[in-house]
Amino acid sequence: MSILVFGHKNPDTDTICSAIAYAELKGKTGKKVKPARLGEVNEETKFVLDYFKIQKPELIETVAGKEIMLVDHNERTQTADGFEEAKVLELVDHHRISNFNVDEPLYVRMEPVGCTATIILKLFKEKNLLPSKETAGLMLSAIISDTLLFKSPTCTEYDVKAGKELAEIAGVNLEEYGLEMLKAGTALGGKSESELLNMDMKIFEIDGKRIGVGQVNTVNEEEILERKEKLISEMNTLNSKENLDFFLFVITNILSNDSIGIVAGNGNEIIEKAFNGKVESNTVLLKGVVSRKKQVIPPLTRAIQGN
Amino acid sequence: MSILVFGHKNPDTDTICSAIAYAELKGKTGKKVKPARLGEVNEETKFVLDYFKIQKPELIETVAGKEIMLVDHNERTQTADGFEEAKVLELVDHHRISNFNVDEPLYVRMEPVGCTATIILKLFKEKNLLPSKETAGLMLSAIISDTLLFKSPTCTEYDVKAGKELAEIAGVNLEEYGLEMLKAGTALGGKSESELLNMDMKIFEIDGKRIGVGQVNTVNEEEILERKEKLISEMNTLNSKENLDFFLFVITNILSNDSIGIVAGNGNEIIEKAFNGKVESNTVLLKGVVSRKKQVIPPLTRAIQGN
Repeated sequence: MSILVFGHKNPDTDTICSAIAYAELKGKTGKKVKPARLGEVNEETKFVLDYFKIQKPELIETVAGKEIMLVDHNERTQTADGFEEAKVLELVDHHRISNFNVDEPLYVRMEPVGCTATIILKLFKEKNLLPSKETAGLMLSAIISDTLLFKSPTCTEYDVKAGKELAEIAGVNLEEYGLEMLKAGTALGGKSESELLNMDMKIFEIDGKRIGVGQVNTVNEEEILERKEKLISEMNTLNSKENLDFFLFVITNILSNDSIGIVAGNGNEIIEKAFNGKVESNTVLLKGVVSRKKQVIPPLTRAIQGN
Repeated sequence: MSILVFGHKNPDTDTICSAIAYAELKGKTGKKVKPARLGEVNEETKFVLDYFKIQKPELIETVAGKEIMLVDHNERTQTADGFEEAKVLELVDHHRISNFNVDEPLYVRMEPVGCTATIILKLFKEKNLLPSKETAGLMLSAIISDTLLFKSPTCTEYDVKAGKELAEIAGVNLEEYGLEMLKAGTALGGKSESELLNMDMKIFEIDGKRIGVGQVNTVNEEEILERKEKLISEMNTLNSKENLDFFLFVITNILSNDSIGIVAGNGNEIIEKAFNGKVESNTVLLKGVVSRKKQVIPPLTRAIQGN
């Protein structure tokens, strides 16, 4: 039976592409590892997979009884169902560690860089290997996606270096391909409010509070703000269903690199404290905010913990 | 201000020596990092530091407000006071991950090997560096201590290889030095019951239960079992003070590689289920058990979780 490697629920481009790349690396070092995914791929990832003519990984419902490797996530709320009944062999990630508990020692590589694929390229090189042309394209796409073409504050010199190197292996023009890919990701393509919210939604548990944070990239935030009332109604439904204290939906303009947040639930006080701004008719301006990991979760955590 | 690097509370040889070794490695790569310790060094570690003429690291009370690196542990119950008010930069460990929550991404290296020092030697080599003669001696001692001279089931081929290489750099005879060191660690030297229990005690939180597990190495378990009643009385005191469900004290014979466990508190049922043996007058035979990490905590966890 193959070992499964996968990223988080509500998969994004890094999660899908890093799973594929890590499976390739493991395969080259003699291990039978298969990439998998925990949900539907988004528009951006679809563009990437089509561009490099790679099939999307198999969708899995549960990992109970399986040997697994995790990429691009570690928090319990973001991983596969059946996690407690699986054997975790490896973890490669670039997020904070939180609510990740395992019974046995495992192999872990984490670095505070902008993208999991940046770490995976390093792991290839430690074994004196390089990814295939197509996989290099996927890894490059993951870096462009996670760093918004190197503009996010999560982006490090290592991501830039890895991105340039991968673009060369993949044979694409980094800037041109990058903008095309990011724009493909902003296509809403007749998505319902529920689909918009869930596209890239993660649940965080902070000091007993459960918070949902969704994010969407756009080149025209008005198009989304027009649907605010319906979005809020859907967010309230999600809050009940997932037992959330509140939901924050972050609409990020990839050209201006600012965001607007829509809030539903019992979160105004925390959000105002976290971002030092006023929540008015359920929206808050998040000036210069593009990174959930670096610019949304840490201030929310501090606000909740009262630091 | 220097960054602090330290291992777990109730320090053992790996925790002390890996902190010193990691500080040396960081120093060689241009970072100002100082080793520290969270408690008194044990007899074995004292022997090691004397042998290689290295001063013990500075004792610290709290890490609040400091930049820190963790070696040889990650669980909240085993780390420094003030952890929540510190900034964790790096983690190098070979234990399970449990109750380790941080707000920001960090650098992590974990491998399922027998000793943290084995991972640290690998990190030296990745930078094309080697530890100094004395530090190599400390790292070798850590490996001998954690693997009971390569006899523990936690020992991997990487530990053996690292041990041999470090013995060469340190210029010691591995077998001779190893036995001498392990025997030095069994010297009880007029220790009180409380000191015996605390020498190498760790607290684990498993599914809401708090469990203390102490371990002591010996070449003559009778010498310790003679003091059973006083030990149990002291263990009950510890259970109250630390709010533990029960305490398991593991007496390991480093020559026969078997252990005897003394139990105090509300743990008989869990222990009998975990080790498939009878607890009689507070003791249980742990045949072939030498590793807390690999042979004590996993079965205890399974017994508590009802798997």
